[in-house]
Amino acid sequence: MYFASDNAGPVHPEVLASLTRANEGYAMPYGADDGMGRVRAQIREIFEAPNAMVHLVATGTAANSLALACMCQPFETVFCSSVAHIHEDECSAPEFYAGGAKLTIVTCDVDKMSPKALRATIAAEGTRGVHGPQRGPVSITQVAEKGSVHTLDELKALVEVAKEFDLPVHLDGARFANAMAALGCTAAEMSWKLGIDAVSFGGTKNGLMGVEAVVFFDPKKSWEFELRRKRGAHLFSKVRFLAAQMEAYLTDDLWLNSARKANANMVRLSNGLRGLAGTEFLAEPDANMVFAKMPRAAHKRLQDGGAVYYIMGGSVEGDDPDEQLLCRLVCDWSISEVQIDQFISLAAG
Amino acid sequence: MYFASDNAGPVHPEVLASLTRANEGYAMPYGADDGMGRVRAQIREIFEAPNAMVHLVATGTAANSLALACMCQPFETVFCSSVAHIHEDECSAPEFYAGGAKLTIVTCDVDKMSPKALRATIAAEGTRGVHGPQRGPVSITQVAEKGSVHTLDELKALVEVAKEFDLPVHLDGARFANAMAALGCTAAEMSWKLGIDAVSFGGTKNGLMGVEAVVFFDPKKSWEFELRRKRGAHLFSKVRFLAAQMEAYLTDDLWLNSARKANANMVRLSNGLRGLAGTEFLAEPDANMVFAKMPRAAHKRLQDGGAVYYIMGGSVEGDDPDEQLLCRLVCDWSISEVQIDQFISLAAG
Amino acid sequence: MYFASDNAGPVHPEVLASLTRANEGYAMPYGADDGMGRVRAQIREIFEAPNAMVHLVATGTAANSLALACMCQPFETVFCSSVAHIHEDECSAPEFYAGGAKLTIVTCDVDKMSPKALRATIAAEGTRGVHGPQRGPVSITQVAEKGSVHTLDELKALVEVAKEFDLPVHLDGARFANAMAALGCTAAEMSWKLGIDAVSFGGTKNGLMGVEAVVFFDPKKSWEFELRRKRGAHLFSKVRFLAAQMEAYLTDDLWLNSARKANANMVRLSNGLRGLAGTEFLAEPDANMVFAKMPRAAHKRLQDGGAVYYIMGGSVEGDDPDEQLLCRLVCDWSISEVQIDQFISLAAG
Amino acid sequence: MYFASDNAGPVHPEVLASLTRANEGYAMPYGADDGMGRVRAQIREIFEAPNAMVHLVATGTAANSLALACMCQPFETVFCSSVAHIHEDECSAPEFYAGGAKLTIVTCDVDKMSPKALRATIAAEGTRGVHGPQRGPVSITQVAEKGSVHTLDELKALVEVAKEFDLPVHLDGARFANAMAALGCTAAEMSWKLGIDAVSFGGTKNGLMGVEAVVFFDPKKSWEFELRRKRGAHLFSKVRFLAAQMEAYLTDDLWLNSARKANANMVRLSNGLRGLAGTEFLAEPDANMVFAKMPRAAHKRLQDGGAVYYIMGGSVEGDDPDEQLLCRLVCDWSISEVQIDQFISLAAG
Repeated sequence: MYFASDNAGPVHPEVLASLTRANEGYAMPYGADDGMGRVRAQIREIFEAPNAMVHLVATGTAANSLALACMCQPFETVFCSSVAHIHEDECSAPEFYAGGAKLTIVTCDVDKMSPKALRATIAAEGTRGVHGPQRGPVSITQVAEKGSVHTLDELKALVEVAKEFDLPVHLDGARFANAMAALGCTAAEMSWKLGIDAVSFGGTKNGLMGVEAVVFFDPKKSWEFELRRKRGAHLFSKVRFLAAQMEAYLTDDLWLNSARKANANMVRLSNGLRGLAGTEFLAEPDANMVFAKMPRAAHKRLQDGGAVYYIMGGSVEGDDPDEQLLCRLVCDWSISEVQIDQFISLAAG
Repeated sequence: MYFASDNAGPVHPEVLASLTRANEGYAMPYGADDGMGRVRAQIREIFEAPNAMVHLVATGTAANSLALACMCQPFETVFCSSVAHIHEDECSAPEFYAGGAKLTIVTCDVDKMSPKALRATIAAEGTRGVHGPQRGPVSITQVAEKGSVHTLDELKALVEVAKEFDLPVHLDGARFANAMAALGCTAAEMSWKLGIDAVSFGGTKNGLMGVEAVVFFDPKKSWEFELRRKRGAHLFSKVRFLAAQMEAYLTDDLWLNSARKANANMVRLSNGLRGLAGTEFLAEPDANMVFAKMPRAAHKRLQDGGAVYYIMGGSVEGDDPDEQLLCRLVCDWSISEVQIDQFISLAAG
Repeated sequence: MYFASDNAGPVHPEVLASLTRANEGYAMPYGADDGMGRVRAQIREIFEAPNAMVHLVATGTAANSLALACMCQPFETVFCSSVAHIHEDECSAPEFYAGGAKLTIVTCDVDKMSPKALRATIAAEGTRGVHGPQRGPVSITQVAEKGSVHTLDELKALVEVAKEFDLPVHLDGARFANAMAALGCTAAEMSWKLGIDAVSFGGTKNGLMGVEAVVFFDPKKSWEFELRRKRGAHLFSKVRFLAAQMEAYLTDDLWLNSARKANANMVRLSNGLRGLAGTEFLAEPDANMVFAKMPRAAHKRLQDGGAVYYIMGGSVEGDDPDEQLLCRLVCDWSISEVQIDQFISLAAG
Repeated sequence: MYFASDNAGPVHPEVLASLTRANEGYAMPYGADDGMGRVRAQIREIFEAPNAMVHLVATGTAANSLALACMCQPFETVFCSSVAHIHEDECSAPEFYAGGAKLTIVTCDVDKMSPKALRATIAAEGTRGVHGPQRGPVSITQVAEKGSVHTLDELKALVEVAKEFDLPVHLDGARFANAMAALGCTAAEMSWKLGIDAVSFGGTKNGLMGVEAVVFFDPKKSWEFELRRKRGAHLFSKVRFLAAQMEAYLTDDLWLNSARKANANMVRLSNGLRGLAGTEFLAEPDANMVFAKMPRAAHKRLQDGGAVYYIMGGSVEGDDPDEQLLCRLVCDWSISEVQIDQFISLAAG
C-alpha cells in the first residue's frame, strides 16, 4: 500500500522491454542515435508542432531549471505560485541555473494562481526601474502541486495575463499526462494553442526510470538549451537509453493509458475516503493526488497496517485520536484496486 | 567495428538483469532505498574506507563538477592539465558549479602533468594576494585523456606537490577500473593511500547506462554534496535504478573483468597496428585508448570498411594518401576479437 | 525643497575638507594606506569591538551583498522582510553575490518583522530536507524601509529567534546613525551586544559621497570578505579617498550630529504636517523618513511650488482634489528649517 | 620617489575643484543628474560616436567585468593574453560577472598577442561542439600590461582576426589616454574605426579618485548594462561625484595632458636608466610603464634612498650584488623631474 508518491512504483514493463531492445550493438553518443530522432518525431507529432525543439533530461528539476534558464536573464524574475515545485522543492536549482535570478511568489488558493493575483504581482514587480528585478517568465504547474488540474480556460486566463506584459510562459508538466487524461484534451490544446512557450513534459512520475522532455515551440533557443544542458552536466553520453524509455512511453498511448489508470485509482480511493468521519480534502482531486485531513486514529490504523504515505504536519503518535492530520496521497498506474480498497478499509476502521 | 568511444557499446547483460530485479514493487525515493545502502557498503569495502561519503550521479561531468564544487571556493582556482576533461570537454561545468571559479592550466607532456610543472604553476598562482584567484584543488585524470595511466609513483609525486601547498586532490576516474586493471593495484592504493581526497569513480564508460559514484574519504562534506547535487538537479527520485546498475557492476568483479577485457582488446589492437607503415602512436596505450597517426589511405580503407572512430584533424578526403592523420581509438569490453582483427586487417591494407 | 531622499543632498563640508587633506602625496593602494588604518581603529572603538573586521565599500548594496555572501552558502536562504531593501531595491544583487542563494520573505507590519512571523517562517523553511533551501542568515534593516526604528528590545527579540535556530544575523544599517540618534544608544548596544554578527554601517545617506563600512564582530571571515570584495570589483585602488570620508564622518561626532539634525528636521516636518486635513502617516516617523498620505490638491500645490519628492502610486494629475496619494518624505542633515516650513505651508494650502 | 603604480599619486587639483563645485545643492540620484548628461555628451564627442552608450563605474575591474558580461554568455569564453589584467589581477571577477564563463589564454610575446596566435587559439576553441565552451569576445589591453602600446595596425590586425570568427572585441583601456598620447591618434581611431565594440575608458590611473567609463558603440545593450551594474552593486546613488571627476578630466584636455606628462616622465626615466650597467628593459616603454632588470646593488641603493616600487621576483636582500632583479616602474602625471633624476642617480650609484 504505497501512496507516498508516483515516483516509487515500478517502471512499466514496456519501458524495460524497450531498454532491452535499445541495448543492441553500438549507438552514436550524445543524442545522435536513431532512437532520439524517433522520439523527437513522436513528440512533435503528439504536440502537432513539427518544428518544436525537443531535448531529454533525466530529472524534472533539470527540465524546469534548464527551460527557465533559457527564458530568464539573471536580472529577471520568474513568477510562480507560493507552492510551486520550482520554489519549494528544487533547492534553488532554478535560481542557480538562471545565474542568480529571482522567483517572485504569487499567492494562490490551494495551488492555483488567480489571473488577478498574477496580474497584480507582475504589475507590482515592474515599478522600481533598475532597482528591482525585471519581469521574466511565468511558470504554471499542471497538475498543480496539491492535485488540482487547471481547466483550459483557467490556463488560458493565466497565459493571457503573461502576454499582457509580453512575458513568456513555462508549463511545469511533471504530471502532464495526468492532466491531459483528466481534461480529455490534446497536448497542443494544453500548450501552444493557449500561448504556452515551453513545457517540461514529465515521464518519471508516470512509469519511466527517469526521463523528461523539454519542448520549446519556437526552436530558436535549441542550441542554447544544448549548451546549458551540457554545462549543467545533464547531457548523457548514452542518450539512447533515455530515448528508449520515452519511445516506449509514447507508443500505443502507454503514457495516456498509464495516466488514466493512475487517475482512476485516485477516483476509487477518494470515493472510498469521502464521507469517512473526520475526513476532508484540501481540494477535490482532479488527477492522481489528494491532500486529505484524517483523524489520528485512522492514520494509526493505516500505518500499523503497512500503508506508506506522507503526513505533512503532526505525528501519528499523539493523544487526541480525533485530531485531524494532513496527509498527501498519490496513486500511480501500478497501484492495484485491492491495495486501494485495503487502504480505505483501514481508514474507515 | 566501433572504436569511437567506450560510451557507445551496449550495457552489460548483468546490469540489465539487475535493473529488472530492481523493478520489483515500491522503493523509497531519493536514495533511501535498500539498494543504495548496499552500493554504499560495496564501495566502502572496495576502497577499504568504512566512513567514506558515497553518492551516485548519472554523468561523469556531474561527478567531477559536484566534487570540485565541494572542494573549491568561488574565488579559488582548480589546477589541471591542459588536456583535462574538466577543462576541454565539460563546457565549463566545473566553473559553473563552483560559482565562477577558475581553472589554472598546467602544461603536460602528452597527457600527464609533471610534478615540476605542477609545482611551478601552483607557486606562480599564489603571488598576487587578493588580486589573483586563490589556490584550490588539484585535479588529476586517471586514465589520462590521451590514454596514459599514471603509475602509483607518478600519482604520489603529484599528490605530494599538492600537499606541499596544503591543497586537496581530486581524481577524475572516469576510467578508474581500466587504470586499476592496468596497474594491478587496489582501489585504496590508487586513491586515499596516496593522499587523494575525492574520486569520481566511473561506471558509464565500462558497461553501465549512466552511473558514476563520487567518493570523499573524509565524509564531512556529505550533506553539502547532497545539497549541491539536488540544486544541480542531479538527485534522481528513482535512485534504485542507479544503485541497481552500480550494484551489478561491483558484484563478482564485473567492473574489473570488464576493464581487463577492454584493456586486453587494446593490447590486441595496438599490437596489430604497431609497425604498420606510416603508423605511430602519440603514446603507448596503457589501458583501453590510443591516439594513433595513420596514413590517409589506411583511414580510407577503414572507413569504407565500416569502422567508426574519430579523426582529430584533417579529413579522409584528401590528395596525399601517405599523409598521417591523427585518430582516437577506444576499446570497450564488448568489442570482439573478430572486429579488432578486421580493423587491423583493413588498416594494413 | 528636496525631500526625495537622503542621497541627493550635498556632502558635508568636513568630508570635502578631509578629501582635500588626503590628497597629499602618495599613498599605498588597496587599503594599505595610513588612513584606512585610522578608520579601522575608529570603528573598532565606536563599536567597542577591538578585533572586529572592518572593510569599506562604496555602495550600500555592495555592503549588504558582500556581507551576506560571507554568511550564506548558495544552497541557503536569507530571511528578510517583504519590504527589505535587499529584496526590493538591489536588483537581486544579494542573490548574485551569494551564488544563486534565495531570499525567504517574512511578512511584516509596515516595515518590521514580528518575532512570531520570523519564527514561523524559519520553522517552515526547514521541513523539506534536501529539497528546500537550507536556513541561512536573518537580515534586519535599521532604520527600517518605511521609517520605523526598531527598539533595542524589538531587535533583541528578532535576534533571539535567529539564535534559536543557530542562524547568524545581519543588520542593514544604511541609516545606522539615524537609528542610534533616535534610540540614544551606543553602537555596541545596537549590534553585537544584542547578538548581531555583521553590520552594514552606512555613511552615504548621512553626508558622505559614497562610503559604507562592513563590520563583522568575529574577524575570521576577513580574508574571505576581501576576496569577495575584489572579485565583485569593489576593491578601490585609492582606498585613501574612501577612508578620508569615513574618517571625517567619525571625527568629533559628525556622523551622530548629522543624524540628529536629520531626525530633528523630520520632527519639525511631521509636526507641521500632522493634523492637516486629509493627511495621515503610514507610521509615525521614528527617524528621518515618513510615508504620508496627502490630498492630491496638497501635492499639486507642493509640486507647483518646487518641492521634490516621490509619490508612490497615483499621479498629481487627476480629477479628485481630495484623493489621498501616498508619498515618501526624507530629511537629510542639510535641509533648512526655512525649506521645511515652506513645505508645510504649501501642504497646508 | 613613488614609481610603484599610477594609482598612488594625488588626484589632479582640477578634479578636486570639480568635486567641490558639484557639491552645490541637490542632485537627482542614480545618474539622472545634469553632470552625468554632460559627461555622456563629452565622451560621445571625443569618440565621435553620437549614439554610444556611456556609463560610469568606480573601478577598472568593474568596467571590464560588466562590459564583458554584456558581451559573453555563460557558456562562452573570452580570449585574452596570458598576462591580461582580467586573467591575472581581477580575482576572477570577469568569470563571476559573466556567470561562470571561461577565459581562454592566448600566448603572447611580452604582453601583446600576435594575430597568428589569436587565430590559432580561437580556431582550436571551436572544434568540440557542445563539449567545449563557445567562442566569445576578444579582449585586448591598451596600454598592455608590461607597458607596450599596440600600434593602430597591430590593433587592427587583432580585431580582424576576431571579425573573421564574428566575435566582438573589448578594449581594456585602463591607460587609454596614455596609449592615445603615445600614438598621437584620436579616440575614434583607436576604437570603433578599427572595429572595436566596447571600451573600458580609464580615469583612475590618470588622476581621478576612482572613475572609469564604459563605452559601447552600439547602444542596444545599454539597459542590460545598467541592470548588470545595479546587480553588481556598482550603481552609485550620488553619481554626480563620479560625473564631476570625469567632467573635469575631459575638459580642456586635462586627460591627454596628464597622460602626455606621465609618458614624458617615463621617457626621462628610461633614458636615464638605459645603458646603466646590468640594466635592461623587458621591452622598450611605449607609454608610462617599464619592466626593468637591474642589479641587486642598484635596487638596494634605491630602496635605501626611499624609492618605492615593486620588485617582481627575488629580494633586495641577497648575496650577489650583480644579480638582476626584475622590477616594475610606473610614472604618473604627478612625478617631478627632480624625483626622476634622483631615482636615476641612485640607480647609477
